[in-house]
Amino acid sequence: MSFESDTQVSPAEAGGYDAVIHDGWDIGGNANGGYLLAMAVRAMLAASERDDPLTVTAHYLRPGRPGPAHVDTEVVKAGKSFTTVRAAMAGSDGRLLMSLLGTFGGHDLDGPEFVDGAPPELPGFEECARMRPTGDFPSGFGDRVDTRFAPDEGFMSGVKSGKGRLSGWFTFPELDSEAAIDPLGLMVATDAFPPVVFNLDVPAAWVPTVELTVHVRARPAPGPLRCLFTTRFVTGGFLEEESEVWDGAGRMVAQSRQLALVPRA
Amino acid sequence: MSFESDTQVSPAEAGGYDAVIHDGWDIGGNANGGYLLAMAVRAMLAASERDDPLTVTAHYLRPGRPGPAHVDTEVVKAGKSFTTVRAAMAGSDGRLLMSLLGTFGGHDLDGPEFVDGAPPELPGFEECARMRPTGDFPSGFGDRVDTRFAPDEGFMSGVKSGKGRLSGWFTFPELDSEAAIDPLGLMVATDAFPPVVFNLDVPAAWVPTVELTVHVRARPAPGPLRCLFTTRFVTGGFLEEESEVWDGAGRMVAQSRQLALVPRA
Repeated sequence: MSFESDTQVSPAEAGGYDAVIHDGWDIGGNANGGYLLAMAVRAMLAASERDDPLTVTAHYLRPGRPGPAHVDTEVVKAGKSFTTVRAAMAGSDGRLLMSLLGTFGGHDLDGPEFVDGAPPELPGFEECARMRPTGDFPSGFGDRVDTRFAPDEGFMSGVKSGKGRLSGWFTFPELDSEAAIDPLGLMVATDAFPPVVFNLDVPAAWVPTVELTVHVRARPAPGPLRCLFTTRFVTGGFLEEESEVWDGAGRMVAQSRQLALVPRA
Repeated sequence: MSFESDTQVSPAEAGGYDAVIHDGWDIGGNANGGYLLAMAVRAMLAASERDDPLTVTAHYLRPGRPGPAHVDTEVVKAGKSFTTVRAAMAGSDGRLLMSLLGTFGGHDLDGPEFVDGAPPELPGFEECARMRPTGDFPSGFGDRVDTRFAPDEGFMSGVKSGKGRLSGWFTFPELDSEAAIDPLGLMVATDAFPPVVFNLDVPAAWVPTVELTVHVRARPAPGPLRCLFTTRFVTGGFLEEESEVWDGAGRMVAQSRQLALVPRA
């Protein structure tokens, strides 16, 4: 039972890839969106015959439940440097869970460098308490990932910060501190934390993702990841949530933005 | 000759939508990416039978040249509130220019409000000079849109600001000051300005878009739009460029993020 084993896919005879939505990756019964994304992107990556995802977009259509799943993949264009793939993931009843589009390639390009930003300031990984599911909010997912917040990070301590910001550490519990999280693991990192909107003084009970786009900017160096999540606009029944993910070498390795619904509580 | 007329699509007998990439929307011979996006999204919107695009992602596969084009559309899911559509736009030779995925719906939802931000501070629309194509950089596109920068906005005045930031006004020249830009026009606004990276002290000659995602957060109120573009990470041969678009009523109406290549000059 690990992220690696629970996101495996295998080529199906009739085309596409067979997968299994494993039990235990759920939040309140529905599989975590980043977990489903990682599995679908593993299939797309295989279809692309490239090294890494560069940019992937998923539109979430229905909640995923444990059981067999299938990822249909179609190479849209195989170019010199990049391959673009579209995909659809279906559950055991054949109904679509996600529709996806991604471009794959390698992180071996060269070019000018400019960085305006820094990893979020956090107490050390060992100094932050691991977030654990509570009886109020049962979640297998909380056991599959190791997410840790700064002690004063707001609503988890019972007080909303009022700021559209949340930061913390991310890794998988089965990894030792010298192991590197791969680009598929980044898919999970970008959707593994509680919604930032829970830190705001607005009534929001659940925040279903409509669309999530992840840019992978580099393969992470070894060690847990420092993640920063922000929400700046809650308007008209929607919000955006962004993430920045920084690796153990202090490099920004992934950015994401999602559009989510924020139904009146 | 207007944005409206030059982005029309018509249902094709064999399915999908026929379109024409009109002459005059090019930058150095290739059709502007936002113009192509608007045309493809008009077809997707028609296929969705909804009011508005909510979130649309385009992967750019090849440059678009003037001539007939075709947009294949496929409704992935028609739900209660949203319809998800995938699409592919091909040029006159049948080769794909873009692959797209979008979710469509309406902006009639209600919910809590939180806004952390404000429109970029700009001199009045009339006080800013309209950017015009020069002999060095021939561009029909510069005549099809009306983009205006603050006088001190950096590289256009000959001095790079060194900051990953650019802001200015956007409208279409055929619109009077009381006309509202529609959500399809927002697609153009998010990709109508010169690359922010031109303001940075890094060698970058051209910046082809790999992927562009646009969130439409509201229908714009009448008047020109205030746009802010930022780039924070130029790394490993890629950069991201983001936009925030604000309407005449001071509301944030669209956000975009693109992943682009930044080949060594």
